Amino acid sequence: MSASATKADPMDLSLDTLLCAYGADALTPTALVERLSDALDAYEEVDPAVWIYRIPKQDLLDRAKDLEAAAAENRGPLFGVPFAIKDNIDVAGLPSTMGCPEPLYTANKTSFAVQNLLDAGAILIGKTNLDQFATGLVGVRSPYGAPRCVFDGEYVSGGSSSGSAVAVAAGLATFSFGTDTAGSGRVPAGFNNIVGIKPTRGLLSTSGVFPANKTLDCLSIFALSAGDGDRIRRIAEGFDPEDPFSRAGDPAPLPLEKPRIGVPRADQLTFFGDGAAAELFDAAVVQAKALGWEVVNFDYEPFGATAKLLYGSAWVAERLAAVKPYLDRDLHPVTRQIIGGAGDYDAADAFEAIYAAQRLRTRCAEIAKDFDVILVPTSPTIYRVADVEADPIALNSNLGTYTNFVNLLDMAAVSVPAGFRANGLPFGVTLVGPGQSDGALAILADRLHRALHPRSGKHDAPLAAAPMTPDVGGDGLVTVCVVGAHLTGMPLNSQLTERNATLLETTRTAPDYRFYALADSVPPKPGLSRDPGFDGPGIEVELWQMPVEAFGGFVALIPQPLGIGTVTLADGRNVKGFICEPAGIATATEITNFGGWRAYRAAAA
Amino acid sequence: MSASATKADPMDLSLDTLLCAYGADALTPTALVERLSDALDAYEEVDPAVWIYRIPKQDLLDRAKDLEAAAAENRGPLFGVPFAIKDNIDVAGLPSTMGCPEPLYTANKTSFAVQNLLDAGAILIGKTNLDQFATGLVGVRSPYGAPRCVFDGEYVSGGSSSGSAVAVAAGLATFSFGTDTAGSGRVPAGFNNIVGIKPTRGLLSTSGVFPANKTLDCLSIFALSAGDGDRIRRIAEGFDPEDPFSRAGDPAPLPLEKPRIGVPRADQLTFFGDGAAAELFDAAVVQAKALGWEVVNFDYEPFGATAKLLYGSAWVAERLAAVKPYLDRDLHPVTRQIIGGAGDYDAADAFEAIYAAQRLRTRCAEIAKDFDVILVPTSPTIYRVADVEADPIALNSNLGTYTNFVNLLDMAAVSVPAGFRANGLPFGVTLVGPGQSDGALAILADRLHRALHPRSGKHDAPLAAAPMTPDVGGDGLVTVCVVGAHLTGMPLNSQLTERNATLLETTRTAPDYRFYALADSVPPKPGLSRDPGFDGPGIEVELWQMPVEAFGGFVALIPQPLGIGTVTLADGRNVKGFICEPAGIATATEITNFGGWRAYRAAAA
Repeated sequence: MSASATKADPMDLSLDTLLCAYGADALTPTALVERLSDALDAYEEVDPAVWIYRIPKQDLLDRAKDLEAAAAENRGPLFGVPFAIKDNIDVAGLPSTMGCPEPLYTANKTSFAVQNLLDAGAILIGKTNLDQFATGLVGVRSPYGAPRCVFDGEYVSGGSSSGSAVAVAAGLATFSFGTDTAGSGRVPAGFNNIVGIKPTRGLLSTSGVFPANKTLDCLSIFALSAGDGDRIRRIAEGFDPEDPFSRAGDPAPLPLEKPRIGVPRADQLTFFGDGAAAELFDAAVVQAKALGWEVVNFDYEPFGATAKLLYGSAWVAERLAAVKPYLDRDLHPVTRQIIGGAGDYDAADAFEAIYAAQRLRTRCAEIAKDFDVILVPTSPTIYRVADVEADPIALNSNLGTYTNFVNLLDMAAVSVPAGFRANGLPFGVTLVGPGQSDGALAILADRLHRALHPRSGKHDAPLAAAPMTPDVGGDGLVTVCVVGAHLTGMPLNSQLTERNATLLETTRTAPDYRFYALADSVPPKPGLSRDPGFDGPGIEVELWQMPVEAFGGFVALIPQPLGIGTVTLADGRNVKGFICEPAGIATATEITNFGGWRAYRAAAA
Repeated sequence: MSASATKADPMDLSLDTLLCAYGADALTPTALVERLSDALDAYEEVDPAVWIYRIPKQDLLDRAKDLEAAAAENRGPLFGVPFAIKDNIDVAGLPSTMGCPEPLYTANKTSFAVQNLLDAGAILIGKTNLDQFATGLVGVRSPYGAPRCVFDGEYVSGGSSSGSAVAVAAGLATFSFGTDTAGSGRVPAGFNNIVGIKPTRGLLSTSGVFPANKTLDCLSIFALSAGDGDRIRRIAEGFDPEDPFSRAGDPAPLPLEKPRIGVPRADQLTFFGDGAAAELFDAAVVQAKALGWEVVNFDYEPFGATAKLLYGSAWVAERLAAVKPYLDRDLHPVTRQIIGGAGDYDAADAFEAIYAAQRLRTRCAEIAKDFDVILVPTSPTIYRVADVEADPIALNSNLGTYTNFVNLLDMAAVSVPAGFRANGLPFGVTLVGPGQSDGALAILADRLHRALHPRSGKHDAPLAAAPMTPDVGGDGLVTVCVVGAHLTGMPLNSQLTERNATLLETTRTAPDYRFYALADSVPPKPGLSRDPGFDGPGIEVELWQMPVEAFGGFVALIPQPLGIGTVTLADGRNVKGFICEPAGIATATEITNFGGWRAYRAAAA
């Protein structure tokens, strides 16, 4: 396969495409490695700055053979899936440079999250270029050259996870790990027409990841779709006792049907003169409304003030704490200027910075009561490599306008493609949700991606992944079947919505349910009663999903003779739902023939 | 009332004693103020160093009159209850000295938590002496003199909340506020035979409290009993948007019947040669076992290492951050030495200290899996004022051996009286529980207090307060009535215990319940069915209490035909509990005559 053939015939490395091909024996890991090695070689000619270390082809083939040998017994969920990692992440036996001219060391242990991927059967392709010490949003602060935007070599790829973003956009890996402290996992996603997931802090262990701000650092994931990225996140995450900042997952829901979307007030949005970016962002807001989402304009001031803390206060000294042992190295001059300047802060300044962040958290939390997630441009604009080199700090800083606040506020974020400017450069938008909302946020991001520009990568190919669907019963969420006063529009529906419950579907019970109007119930309520063998119409029900932590409080509200038990649906599923004591049924009126509470109430009215 | 009469006839200022007297019109706030003013004057002769500022008697009388005038319409839950606050807490119009010779300012706003107390009808008596800037555990670092242990004037009162502890112990206030960063709310409780509650960080707002370590500071409560202290805590707490470190209550349960008590390994306990203290601590452990508590010895090393961080790392610079504007004042030489030394730490050191704390948190959390609460001496020993003055830093440091780790690990603590040494000096022990376990921890502390030494204060008077009882239904907890396989010793009981549920009582249902053995249920399970009008024996049930957040997960486990509804008990209470679908009852065998599942299973076996 020649380089030109690679460009003409790009491989679709989407997760399901690969896994289906493997499952159907239409592809083997060995064959994948062969084709991918050619593509990797070919792209070196297009952009030689993507990789700091590529795994030798023979090692890739050995890994493929090992996976194939084990496949009969065990195929992991990432069997044969190629991925790249940013070169500030350790893999046993490989050099870790952090973007320095010489490796800082050869790692003797593989980072926790990468090990999770390898254990799942993924194939590591190599380690990618980055802004030195992950300090930068441009990708040009590296002795290994500046990876370029996959659409125009004059423009920056974004950073600091520059090579990792380009690798996925260029079709060289199904996904990649970046890191994201200030936006390094989002900005380059926006510049290369791919998805960038910045998980909640601590969900992915940072053991074996070289720190920038250790209290804020996250591993991030680049992929072609939010669905692919979210699946990777779930496989990579897990509590790691070796990482003091590791956190167990504790999924928080978001309303999926009509989320309230916070958009910064128009006078607070800046695009640094990039009118095309402003138009694309306006169009994204219009599309969000078209999805039925409610748009709420909010005061971005404290979010912007939080963003400024990251480099404009003693927080920058956290970077110095990490880099101190390497200050005698041949550092990139811009990196040295930024991190070296942190020495002027004393310990009291550090605590003052922590207080300032905490005060802003309180202010932002108050404002955030008005919306469920934030929608912002991923970056206000994009710059040419030459322009960044001429003005390296100010232009870099501009790129973080909408990303820097996220980790300080302990939030999660997903950047998705949002179309192209007339000049052929892509634009991204980011949804930012509360910490631990990762799963639900990815679903919203996937919907937005498909509404705005359902394509991705250098070839702007249509999304191969199917739209994400909510997990029923997974993720700490419980599905509750309601049949009466809790239905949409009925008097007790607020007991669901105030618990952040989400309507999943309207369906029917199995046919062996009889349905009754309870006597003397205020507000009027029905009772379901299973009568094995009875062949009725099935009763109309709604399935609502809520966090299991909120479910107990819901159950506690239910009065005699009702309770929560198990309801069998028409398709055979068993879900939690309303049941009724025999004493309630004994004095009730059968209304099975109405087929549901709504029809009965309409007839009764 | 003369000073000698006060000593001979101390007032019982316990919360219920006062509130009952007010309720029965046997006492008025004015009469209370009159008697208390005499007692306050008399105690000035015993110890002139307790107060920095006493509210003038006429102002107290005016406050009493105001309360009486409003009483017909509204009596708050602390109507006419006298209290003191440490002089690092602001009250509008009063000077705030923080233990400095001149006030730092006159406050223009009353601190949030004090305002809550005033709104509840409490009467502020005055502001108490403290170790300057709340830095110390001795009470001697003050230009206002050293308050003395109420049992022996040669000994320190403990600090830094010295005056607040003495005020309560000497019967001059029902309760008082101290502050507690390193142990300042516990050490003086132990030295004066009273209860010291150190709530979970953030539950009581620190708005209007002069900071020591702003990230760690807590208001603390001194009282004669854990029950009184816990009631004050609930009235004083509340989310305060003005305090960036404020947290809403989110009560966590503790097993109340057979808690696992962690006690440091014998070789890790130190009493600095105070053999009497060692014996009293051993006796406390024996009594804990006699309460049915399981004692688990654990490795205290990382807890001790955490304690050392507070003054042995850049954390001390947080104190400097607060005191910086006042370094030109006439500071106590020891205070200046401790806080002044913090200038050597830079911002990177501060972040390193934060990482060290986070690493220790992870280690301690792993160890803490083996127990529910920790039992430690409040202080290893007690010192004479003269000895502390001769060796002010080392001896002070010794006193914090068992207190300094608590706030860094985000835990709650309650110190209770544990008896007296032969030399007439009291000893205290402290229970330390997880953050947000405050309510349950106070119940355990109250039980321990009553088991060890059910008396308190300078007069070592028997506890006037009734033993604390668990809130049923309050505090984010739900009571669940179980009747079959979830009973103690039955196969599904672990579904309760794994959710930290606590057995409250064994009782019976109302007489109108029939009881059935379900057909084909594995493990065997019964069904309860209410039959209004039926007059049966009532069915034996157990009431378990669990956090409402865990209840949903419990409900989700229950299979058809059972569910959770509402069960009526013999005494008329309605609680959440097991109900059964009619379809389950239809095929079941009635076993009502056995009166309960245990009797039926015994007969069936």
